[in-house]
Amino acid sequence: MTHQLLGPGAEFDRIRKIAEMLGGNAQGLGDDCALLEVGGETLAISTDVSVEGIHFRRDWLSLEEIGWRAAAGALSDLAAEGADAPSVVAALALPPTVDAEAVTQLMKGVGEATAAAGGHVLGGDLSSSGELSLCITVIGRAAHPVRRVGARPGDGIWVTGSLGLARAALTTWLRGEVPHPATRAAFARPESRIRVGRWLAGHEAHAMIDISDGLAGDARHLAAASDVRLEIALDKLPVPPEVDAAAKAEGKTPAVFGALGGEDYELLVALPREFGEKEARECQRATRVPLTRIGEAVQRTEGGGSVIFWLNGEPVSLSGFDHFR
Amino acid sequence: MTHQLLGPGAEFDRIRKIAEMLGGNAQGLGDDCALLEVGGETLAISTDVSVEGIHFRRDWLSLEEIGWRAAAGALSDLAAEGADAPSVVAALALPPTVDAEAVTQLMKGVGEATAAAGGHVLGGDLSSSGELSLCITVIGRAAHPVRRVGARPGDGIWVTGSLGLARAALTTWLRGEVPHPATRAAFARPESRIRVGRWLAGHEAHAMIDISDGLAGDARHLAAASDVRLEIALDKLPVPPEVDAAAKAEGKTPAVFGALGGEDYELLVALPREFGEKEARECQRATRVPLTRIGEAVQRTEGGGSVIFWLNGEPVSLSGFDHFR
Repeated sequence: MTHQLLGPGAEFDRIRKIAEMLGGNAQGLGDDCALLEVGGETLAISTDVSVEGIHFRRDWLSLEEIGWRAAAGALSDLAAEGADAPSVVAALALPPTVDAEAVTQLMKGVGEATAAAGGHVLGGDLSSSGELSLCITVIGRAAHPVRRVGARPGDGIWVTGSLGLARAALTTWLRGEVPHPATRAAFARPESRIRVGRWLAGHEAHAMIDISDGLAGDARHLAAASDVRLEIALDKLPVPPEVDAAAKAEGKTPAVFGALGGEDYELLVALPREFGEKEARECQRATRVPLTRIGEAVQRTEGGGSVIFWLNGEPVSLSGFDHFR
Repeated sequence: MTHQLLGPGAEFDRIRKIAEMLGGNAQGLGDDCALLEVGGETLAISTDVSVEGIHFRRDWLSLEEIGWRAAAGALSDLAAEGADAPSVVAALALPPTVDAEAVTQLMKGVGEATAAAGGHVLGGDLSSSGELSLCITVIGRAAHPVRRVGARPGDGIWVTGSLGLARAALTTWLRGEVPHPATRAAFARPESRIRVGRWLAGHEAHAMIDISDGLAGDARHLAAASDVRLEIALDKLPVPPEVDAAAKAEGKTPAVFGALGGEDYELLVALPREFGEKEARECQRATRVPLTRIGEAVQRTEGGGSVIFWLNGEPVSLSGFDHFR
């Protein structure tokens, strides 16, 4: 049971309550994946529900993209565990307006995202409903499972890919405008981080977390689980220029916009001090995913915050995205 | 790929379409469970979504019962595969009216049904939504996986437990009346058939299927998958007297009411000819679940039906329950 290690937030309060109630019957609630030992192998399992109007809108994305994105969300949890070779099952709740052809399109997206991550769709369930939702469950193999707990003082803190693109698309849509194609693509068909997660797990990653709820909030979960403080330099964040306009429209600097994030299926990872730029280039050669050092883990001090963001030599306060806030 | 073996019905038409589209990327769609080989073991996996207003109503069941019943539905698929030791993950989509205490109650039911089946809840996901739904995914171990395909001419056709109780509760509620306590209990907290499924799998069951969509319809799926005809004697069905009033109110004999069924999480199983009443008593001693022989599998004839129900020496036509009809 890891619920003592959960970070702050209303969603985690709920999970804590559930973990307390389930008692000895629950195992490992509160990490990106649950782990299961089978025949000498370790399986990582995650389940993730995407609901129309909450996670996607049919006027923003094609059905295929909705299926892709739903699968990508669950696959990202496997990536954060360092697991690969995903097996996927999909349970679709379908309102009467979603016809057989539409179901096929949704499942096409699920199948393509799964195939792009080197996996297979094993099966599923179709049900009637009032609102469209996709529940995607993924099962991967974790030769070296990496948890949220494990970061140590002195570790470098790194992030995969880039930050802010998907959120830029989202905030642009919410303002009733048309997002930049690069931001739209990042939102609609996020690339799986399965390969880079697997590579990092095999290169002594100490702790790892999916930052789809935003770097600011998810960094706190990793810090809380590992009982360290993270010091993150906002000017180091890999925020591409396509984010600038959306950040400006929200009245934020691109770095803060990228840190608040959410919607990016990237990984935050604590790596040993010795892991440097040379190793990061090696990782990029092997996986084609860039890796950026954005800070370090330090000893936690009594009463001190769990994550400090720095900008121009000053600490900056950021609040993470919380589903239930 | 087993989609060529799927029976008739609108839901199966959809699954067939999906299977064709996924092509080589889908494996084993269309049975109760998907199978996955891990470290020399075979895992059986199923995912099952329960939606408010479709599968349950909050004015009929307590939240705990809703959680129990949702888990029981998925566990029943494992039972039909002969799998046991279930690991369970639950993704809950929660409208704003469902508070933290209500979530705990739902998960309490999921946890209790899982524990009663000898399993563990590994984790889950909580999301906001407009309507309440529970997506339960179960992973069990199948030492001897039993599929829908495999019944042979000469096999005895048996059913576990009793038929019609849960449907009696449902139809009584739908008439605005209060169901008999025995029928209500069968609907609200169906007992898992994991142990008897596992026992049957270890005793040469040739084919097995969960009949939660009704014996009449599900028998056709087993017959189609196995390419046999099933001859079932309606007067042999284990329909308890508590069903009588509800059957009468629907203008059906208890046997026909029980055969149309749906909602009962029982198993239909094809067993070798040699399996007789003595073996059935052995099974009941080991698992506390009665087993009733209701018919046999015979050679399929050109143009002949896949399932024939007999009553008083006459064939009777029954249509199964189909989610999408």
